[in-house]
Amino acid sequence: MSALNVTHDPARRSWIESANTGDTDFPIQNLPFGAFVRDGETRIGVAIGDRIVDLRALHDIALLDGDAALACSSACDSTLNALMAHDARHVSALRAALSNLLKHDVPARSRLASSIDAVLPLMTNVELTLPWTIGDYTDFLTSLHHTERHGRYKGLADPLPAAFKSLPIAYHGRASSLRVSGGDVRRPYGQYRDANGNVRFGPAPMLDFELELAAVIGQGNELTRAISIDSAREHVFGYCLLNDWSAKSIQWFEQVLGPFLGKSFHSSVSPWIVTEEALAPFRKAAPQRAASDPAILPHLYGASDQRNGGLHLELFAHLSTAAMRSDRLPPAQITHTHLDNLYWTFAQMVAHHTSNGCNLRTGDLLGSGTISGPSDESRACLTELSEAGKKPLLLANGETRIELHDGDEIVLSARASAPGAVSIGFGECRGRIAPALPYPFDASREEH
Amino acid sequence: MSALNVTHDPARRSWIESANTGDTDFPIQNLPFGAFVRDGETRIGVAIGDRIVDLRALHDIALLDGDAALACSSACDSTLNALMAHDARHVSALRAALSNLLKHDVPARSRLASSIDAVLPLMTNVELTLPWTIGDYTDFLTSLHHTERHGRYKGLADPLPAAFKSLPIAYHGRASSLRVSGGDVRRPYGQYRDANGNVRFGPAPMLDFELELAAVIGQGNELTRAISIDSAREHVFGYCLLNDWSAKSIQWFEQVLGPFLGKSFHSSVSPWIVTEEALAPFRKAAPQRAASDPAILPHLYGASDQRNGGLHLELFAHLSTAAMRSDRLPPAQITHTHLDNLYWTFAQMVAHHTSNGCNLRTGDLLGSGTISGPSDESRACLTELSEAGKKPLLLANGETRIELHDGDEIVLSARASAPGAVSIGFGECRGRIAPALPYPFDASREEH
Repeated sequence: MSALNVTHDPARRSWIESANTGDTDFPIQNLPFGAFVRDGETRIGVAIGDRIVDLRALHDIALLDGDAALACSSACDSTLNALMAHDARHVSALRAALSNLLKHDVPARSRLASSIDAVLPLMTNVELTLPWTIGDYTDFLTSLHHTERHGRYKGLADPLPAAFKSLPIAYHGRASSLRVSGGDVRRPYGQYRDANGNVRFGPAPMLDFELELAAVIGQGNELTRAISIDSAREHVFGYCLLNDWSAKSIQWFEQVLGPFLGKSFHSSVSPWIVTEEALAPFRKAAPQRAASDPAILPHLYGASDQRNGGLHLELFAHLSTAAMRSDRLPPAQITHTHLDNLYWTFAQMVAHHTSNGCNLRTGDLLGSGTISGPSDESRACLTELSEAGKKPLLLANGETRIELHDGDEIVLSARASAPGAVSIGFGECRGRIAPALPYPFDASREEH
Repeated sequence: MSALNVTHDPARRSWIESANTGDTDFPIQNLPFGAFVRDGETRIGVAIGDRIVDLRALHDIALLDGDAALACSSACDSTLNALMAHDARHVSALRAALSNLLKHDVPARSRLASSIDAVLPLMTNVELTLPWTIGDYTDFLTSLHHTERHGRYKGLADPLPAAFKSLPIAYHGRASSLRVSGGDVRRPYGQYRDANGNVRFGPAPMLDFELELAAVIGQGNELTRAISIDSAREHVFGYCLLNDWSAKSIQWFEQVLGPFLGKSFHSSVSPWIVTEEALAPFRKAAPQRAASDPAILPHLYGASDQRNGGLHLELFAHLSTAAMRSDRLPPAQITHTHLDNLYWTFAQMVAHHTSNGCNLRTGDLLGSGTISGPSDESRACLTELSEAGKKPLLLANGETRIELHDGDEIVLSARASAPGAVSIGFGECRGRIAPALPYPFDASREEH
């Protein structure tokens, strides 16, 4: 059903001209969901070119009916959670109805165009905000290249953990400090070992970015009821970009039971959730494994997942430093990678996550882990780009980096492209490192 | 202020006779908060002897005023979160007002007694339920003895991680699968190595319990604004018991970035939150450290925390097997430990957790980690009680245990006692291992 959806029609164009430019992330074939603040109120919207369909405003003028109207009324809320919990069929009906209202030859065009700023505000005129309430956040480690390089940096005899090819390794992340793209990322304090091996507490050196894709859960499962590999993708509402900012200095010292304060100071997500349905034309086979790799255990093996669990998706990271911006130099592309660099599919992550009966809830976030590939340009964090500090990354203006400096800005982006389909993007996931605040932060501290 | 609160008066008795028995967990000095289901509706209540004050019913008869009435109206909800977010002064006023309504010589007694089953239902007549919405769940590792023993079982040259005495080690846990005491704990499936070293997927052997105390956060902090050690305890609403059920077989195989599926299948909390205020009479100095231990870094050192960051609190685990129940044998006490066995205080956990700017939110849960001490009786999980399987735990009926069997039931309890104070308890945290369900769990699976 999904592959025949009208929203995939590559010939379809919109009467919103900015949606037809070829380089927009948001052509009429994408229609991702997000949230924005208007008159102090958070509203749910759908991106189209440089505009946003305000779903509450659309609901008020009553152009929709049936399942589409049902889904739209669930979007008259300050978060996407109610909509995400819907049957996929309702969300699909809403996207199809929006596509029909936005296509170039629609009769309703004049009615919408006459109230365009009320129903379709310009994206630049509003503030984008986190569109959903995140329950639990899980971060995986599914790039073999990222994992192997880090094992090598640590000097491990076998740089790949024994379990890596048996299951998608993961840990629980911190949900409270997830923020939408755009704000400052404050340099954290933390304990780390200084050059002399002494334990210090202070602003943490060795800040890094990590480029990830993340799945947002639509319908969850009950505790004790695992989701099978074959129905796993039905539980994914859509995807966004994730920057898993890391303070490596903190992480190296603290890590006994996994990452904690080295990551929990801030994680950034892109503001638009690109639906599973919009990505259907870009589906491809799951990445090939080496013939010598162990067989996939039956509960993680799905014939359909093997056929189309991959995506034609390229991902990018750009860096701009304070010096570059002051010299009006454009951001430098420092990473160009592909989702094929993951060893496990998102369906396998969902099936594994619930295989012990753990329940996923609407709004849970599953990060892929850093999407590094074998080539130099596909290294998706500074630690790898600088070979753990041994080969500093050289920028065009002569600056070098082995870690992020205050003022450095990272922008993540991604693009799905396939023959015969209109390319779609994810918008950007942006963040700039701000200097550490003075510590402690309140005046109530007793002297001792 | 807290130490002078009327609710601490040891001479005070209640007209609810079951609250005066000496062995009750819920004398008039305790007044912990919980939730229960009545006529299909979840309500907030306060335990007193064998009864529960239904705060909505109390609100409806309008016996309270001022701050107490304000707090009570926030408790006319299906979760405690609104009440927990209040200023501590309002919660304190509510507890004082309740204490005054429940004391033996109160004039309102006849009015309450005449509608006792409406306002004060018997605990056995209602179903207790999880009283609050948990945001993030963090689990610490703060017992030196637990940590050292596990390091030894793994054959580590230095069984204590380097960071252990510098910071309270922690990891993010899974919030979605936290459940209130009482239900079945379903044996999970998982990947583990069998006796021949082969990777298998099946019902997980080596299930264990872990006895912990957990803090529930009242007022949180903003991202980037650390909580100082001296104000840390003001952010704790109260405490409950936590059983961090663990599938050691899964954990041993999967663990690269910390515990994941080995713990996320189920964690249990006791239904009553004992407030920070009710515990004030049981405060004592933070546990002493060895003179050779490294100095506490300034951001984790609080003079007041050193003076009274500890608690006179004993904790217990009881086990009953199916055979014991069928022979009508009483549960066996298998653990008797003390909060003094933690190396770090809860204030230090809060200060450390937020030291990188990470925000805590109302309802976040912070587990202490397994509270094992140096003595044999204070080992707070089966792995330690059986010396990692080398010395099976022998029960009075001749059964032995190195792991939990289907049908085994664990009950955690705790008791705060101090000279001149009326002892208070936490209620119980109970769970029984149920056999694994057949796998997979849905019929949609394709053949391959």
